[in-house]
Amino acid sequence: MKTLKERILKDGKVLDGNILKVDSFINHQVDYKLMDDIGDEIYRRFVDCKVDKVLTIETSGIPAAYSVARKFDVPFVFAKKKLSGNIGDDLFSTEVFSYTKSCLYKVVVSKKYLTQGENILVVDDFLANGQAALGMIDLVEQSGANVVGVAALIEKAFQDGGNILREKGYRLEALASIEKMDVEGIKIK
Amino acid sequence: MKTLKERILKDGKVLDGNILKVDSFINHQVDYKLMDDIGDEIYRRFVDCKVDKVLTIETSGIPAAYSVARKFDVPFVFAKKKLSGNIGDDLFSTEVFSYTKSCLYKVVVSKKYLTQGENILVVDDFLANGQAALGMIDLVEQSGANVVGVAALIEKAFQDGGNILREKGYRLEALASIEKMDVEGIKIK
Repeated sequence: MKTLKERILKDGKVLDGNILKVDSFINHQVDYKLMDDIGDEIYRRFVDCKVDKVLTIETSGIPAAYSVARKFDVPFVFAKKKLSGNIGDDLFSTEVFSYTKSCLYKVVVSKKYLTQGENILVVDDFLANGQAALGMIDLVEQSGANVVGVAALIEKAFQDGGNILREKGYRLEALASIEKMDVEGIKIK
Repeated sequence: MKTLKERILKDGKVLDGNILKVDSFINHQVDYKLMDDIGDEIYRRFVDCKVDKVLTIETSGIPAAYSVARKFDVPFVFAKKKLSGNIGDDLFSTEVFSYTKSCLYKVVVSKKYLTQGENILVVDDFLANGQAALGMIDLVEQSGANVVGVAALIEKAFQDGGNILREKGYRLEALASIEKMDVEGIKIK
């Protein structure tokens, strides 16, 4: 997606530890127009699919999930993170390791909002090692719903997530794939 | 706002501890059409004001902030919650006590995204004791920006938040004000 790639090259900042900071337009301050365009583009890429619901994880996937849900005319659900505590019987639950934060957390969705036979499009801002996407896929599959595919705004293509998802047979669409990044610059496929 | 009030009466659930559960349409599964209408209504109520940016706190204020920002054609910012850790020099920071979760947390916004002289509309899903709204107002005022007003989707009018904000002279617009709620039902002004 041209506008997203250009924006990353213009305003993205590379920090130590393989962190790409996009907090001026995606995940702290949000450019609503860009987010509207992101919804349009993800819709275009999955328009051949039946999508009944969009699923993301709080927090920074929420604007994109809203934007995509509007285009498909369906509700969206944001899975919740829990650092600890018991999980009740009314929740689907999985565990996700965050490499960014070096912690294992639980991700939950109410059983009311994922239903057998539904077609679920998974959306997130970043795809790096794939842990968050695999966690969401696990939640969808626990419910008996179908994973239509995974849409990521930004894929760190030098990490394993994309290949893991493709090898498992999931359809993946990344709007901007970062081939390489360091303090000297960012190279996008 | 009629559609929101009707939806709360139809799908809202009252739990022990003054909790109003609206997770089937606002803060877990989200009805994007209702959220679009909420943006229209908040815009209508503040259309006489100059708004340069919309501010909310993660997580459940984000869809409404997006919806409002689109109407005003401005960016939105979501303040981030931190349970602990040092706050760097590049962040505005305040403390908010969550009665729901019985914990004190820090709320931060990068200094890059609140600027002296800007006009900021504060948006959140719930207004109860006003702690989150007061925290956001504190962040805005630390930056030297102006608080245009506070828009809440749902005000628990039997708690103090609304009065505290009005007494301090802030303009408050609540789309649905809950007068009373218990297991027998919900009464909305």
